[in-house]
Amino acid sequence: MNIKKYRVTDGDGFSLADFCPKDTGKCKASGDVQKIITQNISQMKELQDRLYADGKTALLLIFQAMDAGGKDSAIKHVMSGVNPQGVDVFSFKQPSKKELSHDYLWRAVKVLPPRGKIAIFNRSYYEDVLIVKVHRLYENHNVPERCKGEDTIEKRYAQIRHFEDYLWENGIVTVKFFLHLSKEMQRQRFLKRINEKDKNWKFCLGDIEERQYWDDYQDAYQSAIAATATRHSPWYVVPADKKWFARAVISTAVLDALQQIDPQYPKITHAQEAELEECKQRLLEEG
Amino acid sequence: MNIKKYRVTDGDGFSLADFCPKDTGKCKASGDVQKIITQNISQMKELQDRLYADGKTALLLIFQAMDAGGKDSAIKHVMSGVNPQGVDVFSFKQPSKKELSHDYLWRAVKVLPPRGKIAIFNRSYYEDVLIVKVHRLYENHNVPERCKGEDTIEKRYAQIRHFEDYLWENGIVTVKFFLHLSKEMQRQRFLKRINEKDKNWKFCLGDIEERQYWDDYQDAYQSAIAATATRHSPWYVVPADKKWFARAVISTAVLDALQQIDPQYPKITHAQEAELEECKQRLLEEG
Repeated sequence: MNIKKYRVTDGDGFSLADFCPKDTGKCKASGDVQKIITQNISQMKELQDRLYADGKTALLLIFQAMDAGGKDSAIKHVMSGVNPQGVDVFSFKQPSKKELSHDYLWRAVKVLPPRGKIAIFNRSYYEDVLIVKVHRLYENHNVPERCKGEDTIEKRYAQIRHFEDYLWENGIVTVKFFLHLSKEMQRQRFLKRINEKDKNWKFCLGDIEERQYWDDYQDAYQSAIAATATRHSPWYVVPADKKWFARAVISTAVLDALQQIDPQYPKITHAQEAELEECKQRLLEEG
Repeated sequence: MNIKKYRVTDGDGFSLADFCPKDTGKCKASGDVQKIITQNISQMKELQDRLYADGKTALLLIFQAMDAGGKDSAIKHVMSGVNPQGVDVFSFKQPSKKELSHDYLWRAVKVLPPRGKIAIFNRSYYEDVLIVKVHRLYENHNVPERCKGEDTIEKRYAQIRHFEDYLWENGIVTVKFFLHLSKEMQRQRFLKRINEKDKNWKFCLGDIEERQYWDDYQDAYQSAIAATATRHSPWYVVPADKKWFARAVISTAVLDALQQIDPQYPKITHAQEAELEECKQRLLEEG
């Protein structure tokens, strides 16, 4: 499956309008991608095992979306096959009072993956240039005046670029997903959450309030992706109206990232080989 | 006390050779600075209380030095008067296996000060461009080949600059101290540590091994300071052969940083004033 058209590695000329949330490529129905997803997950499992054994590189997967964009279900379906010992998922909710007393990257850095592991950020420090931009929340932060000027968001783009460059240069590969949903599909999914009792817990009044800022959020995503898409820390704009297609794109992208990393089982030296042989003999002699 | 000559805010043209470890300015003996130190500490106490109440800015003080440079005693003497609730000291020793599996800034970011507090780093991420440079330790790290090239240290300088810019832009003020010791004074202090039973614990065989790399360390400090001294995150090259003089310089520099921050007790609004008055009445009526 070719996902190149969804990958953004350079913000110059990036336009969210060029991406359609309904896009399903050449696929017509869920059945067209099931095999791809299954194969992707199977290969991911193998590569994740090697990533862990190799211990040289970490993989950071960032998921961002409008409400009901399908982050939770994408993470569930794409990552469920992988050994949970090698994967940690962190959900970033509204920051606590303690978190707000720190720099905004602090709570994310604390849970960065060690080499050998995969971390999944369900929302992330990108909220600090999304919701914080839309509602100008930075104006209310208890920081020096010089830290909350009109240029705060622009400065944060640069800070995030530097941060992700640093991660790359230190063996942490970052891949970012924007699950691109249409406004109509959000309406339908919200209605479903209200109509189905088992889904009620996923809906709150605030969701309908935020929906009013739809265009502002689209603008904020446009600017954030344009400012932070780089060769080494790409964004994927994933068409998300069809969950099955989103899963196919995401699983292919994660597999691609692991293949680029190309982790290898540590090589055994001749001395280690001899040691292993000796251990084997001692175990056999016991029998 | 004028400490401008010890402050480096621009690495261009910086030369460690211009600084003399024996320098004591116009002061001749310990007695000449005791009053200054006492006054500085007294003012620091007042400003630290305001920093905490204000909660807008954090102060990060980084101490680096050759062994026996006097970091511990400087921290003890300069910071002892300050309310410990507002100050945390972190000593960075040889990184653990867990720490080595993370990016090198990780263990430092985890303990960055929240706004309103002071953090003291006794050694810091600068070790990652000092001892790591001198012994080329990065070559042994379990990271991708691309992350341990000849340019590793140069890249780290840039990463640290970006990191400290980020801190500044987010309300964390960083001030860095290099306690500049002469090789002869290190020899004398080592001998003292060996001769005095109560000081034996401060000496270990490794210290004498590291002393052999004296010139390499001086070069590494020269490069690191030149690469990371900025207006907002300055270095102080503190003459450290006389501990009393080092303390005078450091206490003046810390006080200066707090004065630049200029923290203020939060202002009470008229509404809050009225509320306080009401509370007072209720308390008085109880009597």
